Amino acid sequence: MKIQSALYLVPVPISGAPVSDVIPDGNLEILLQLRHFIVENLRSARRYLKHIDAAFPIADCTFEVLDRHTSPEDVGVMLEPLRNGEPIGIMSEAGCPGVADPGSHPVEIAQREGMRVIPLVGPSSILMSLMASGFNGQGFAFHGYLPIDSSERKKALKRLESESAARHMTQIFIETPYRNNRMVALLSEILSARTMLCVACDITDPEKEEVSTATAQAWKKRKYDYDKRPAIFLLYAGAKGGDSRRYEKK
Amino acid sequence: MKIQSALYLVPVPISGAPVSDVIPDGNLEILLQLRHFIVENLRSARRYLKHIDAAFPIADCTFEVLDRHTSPEDVGVMLEPLRNGEPIGIMSEAGCPGVADPGSHPVEIAQREGMRVIPLVGPSSILMSLMASGFNGQGFAFHGYLPIDSSERKKALKRLESESAARHMTQIFIETPYRNNRMVALLSEILSARTMLCVACDITDPEKEEVSTATAQAWKKRKYDYDKRPAIFLLYAGAKGGDSRRYEKK
Repeated sequence: MKIQSALYLVPVPISGAPVSDVIPDGNLEILLQLRHFIVENLRSARRYLKHIDAAFPIADCTFEVLDRHTSPEDVGVMLEPLRNGEPIGIMSEAGCPGVADPGSHPVEIAQREGMRVIPLVGPSSILMSLMASGFNGQGFAFHGYLPIDSSERKKALKRLESESAARHMTQIFIETPYRNNRMVALLSEILSARTMLCVACDITDPEKEEVSTATAQAWKKRKYDYDKRPAIFLLYAGAKGGDSRRYEKK
Repeated sequence: MKIQSALYLVPVPISGAPVSDVIPDGNLEILLQLRHFIVENLRSARRYLKHIDAAFPIADCTFEVLDRHTSPEDVGVMLEPLRNGEPIGIMSEAGCPGVADPGSHPVEIAQREGMRVIPLVGPSSILMSLMASGFNGQGFAFHGYLPIDSSERKKALKRLESESAARHMTQIFIETPYRNNRMVALLSEILSARTMLCVACDITDPEKEEVSTATAQAWKKRKYDYDKRPAIFLLYAGAKGGDSRRYEKK
C-alpha cells in the first residue's frame, strides 16, 4: 500500500494470535513507512513495531501518548507532523483506535482541519462478537461500560432489554474483566427468561476464544469462567432471525 | 491458521483494493481448506475463491445461497455438513457476514445447536467509517436503512439526532446508493446547524475513498457526488471529543 499524507488509524492485535491471522499485510507496509505515532501505550506500541520488524527505526520516530490522562488541550499539537505533510499513525493498546479506545479526538481535529483520515482493517472484538452472536446485525448499539452503581446498572440493563425488544436491536456492552462473572450472573438473573445473551471471550485467540449464545434462563445453569479475560456482552430481545427483513435491501 | 470443525464467518473485500490490503493471510489459509459455503451471491463467491487460488477446487465444493429470497425454513439444512463435523464458511457479497448483510440466521441456529462459531477479521465499512469520523466510538448505534416515506424518514432522523444529543451516541445508517446525494441534501437541511455529519464513501478503495466530517450547516455549501457509490452516514450531536470520559476505563 502506498503511503499518503494522512492520519492512519492502525488496528493492532487483540490476542496472542499470529499477526498474519488478524492483520492484513497492507497494514504492515504502511506501518513500516510511518515515523510519527500517537499511541495509547508507549511500551506496547514499540513492542509491536519491533515484532513486525526487528530493525524498525524506533529511535528515528516520534511517539505521543494519548490515554485517559492526556489533557484535551494537548491533542491538537500531536498533529503537527501531518500539518507539515508527514503521515501519522494512531495505535491503541489493542484493537481499533477510536472504537471503545482512544483515537477519536485527534481524528476529530484532523477532520476539522481538512486532513485526510484513512482507517485500516483490523480486529474489533465488538464487531466480531456481533458477527458470531447470531443476533441482529442490521440494527445494533454499543454502550461501552454500564453504570457501576448496582441499582443504576440494573435500570440500565432493563432499559437496554426493553429497547432491544421494541426496536429489534442488538445491545452490546463491556465490563472490567475481573467483574465478568458477576455480570453474567446479574444478566441471567434480571433479564427475562427468554431474552438471548451472548458472551464473546478472548476473540481471535486461537486457543481460548469462546462465543456462546443462550437464553438468560439457560445461562443460569451454565458453568463459565470469564474473569480476567477480555469479554463482550450482547443481548437481544427482538424478533428472531427467521425474520428475513433483517437483511432485506430496500 | 489450523481449521476446526466450526462455522466460519469469512469477510470479503468491499472495494477493488488488493486482497492483501484488507484481508489477513490467515483468512486465506482457512478459505483454502473449506469445501462447504453459505454465500449471498454464488457468482461473486466463486470469483473470489478463484481469485485467491486459480486452482481452487470449486467443483468439489457445496454452495448454498443465503439472500433475501431464502426462506427461513431452508436455512437449518445448510448446516448439515457441520453436523457431520465438516467446517462451513459464510460469505456475503462484500464485507462482514451478519453485519448489515446475510449471515445471522445460520449463526443463530449454529449457536442454538452448540456448534462452534468463529468470526474472522475483515473490512467493515460501518466500523471503519466510525473510526475515521472522529465521532464517539464509546457509544454508537447502527440503524440500517431508514424509512423510505418522506415524513417518516424526517421523523426518524430528528429522533436519531435528539438521541445522539441526549446520550452522546454516534448514529450510523445507510441508504441505497443512487439516493446518497439526496440523503446528504436532506440531512444538511433538517439537522440542527451545528450537528456533525460524516459521509464515508468507497471505504478501503485506494483511489476513491473519502471520509468527510463537517457541521450540517457546512455540508449545505459543499460540493459532493456520492451517488452510486457505497456510502455510510454518521451523525453526532453529543459532547465533543475534548471529553476524555469518552474512552475512560472504569
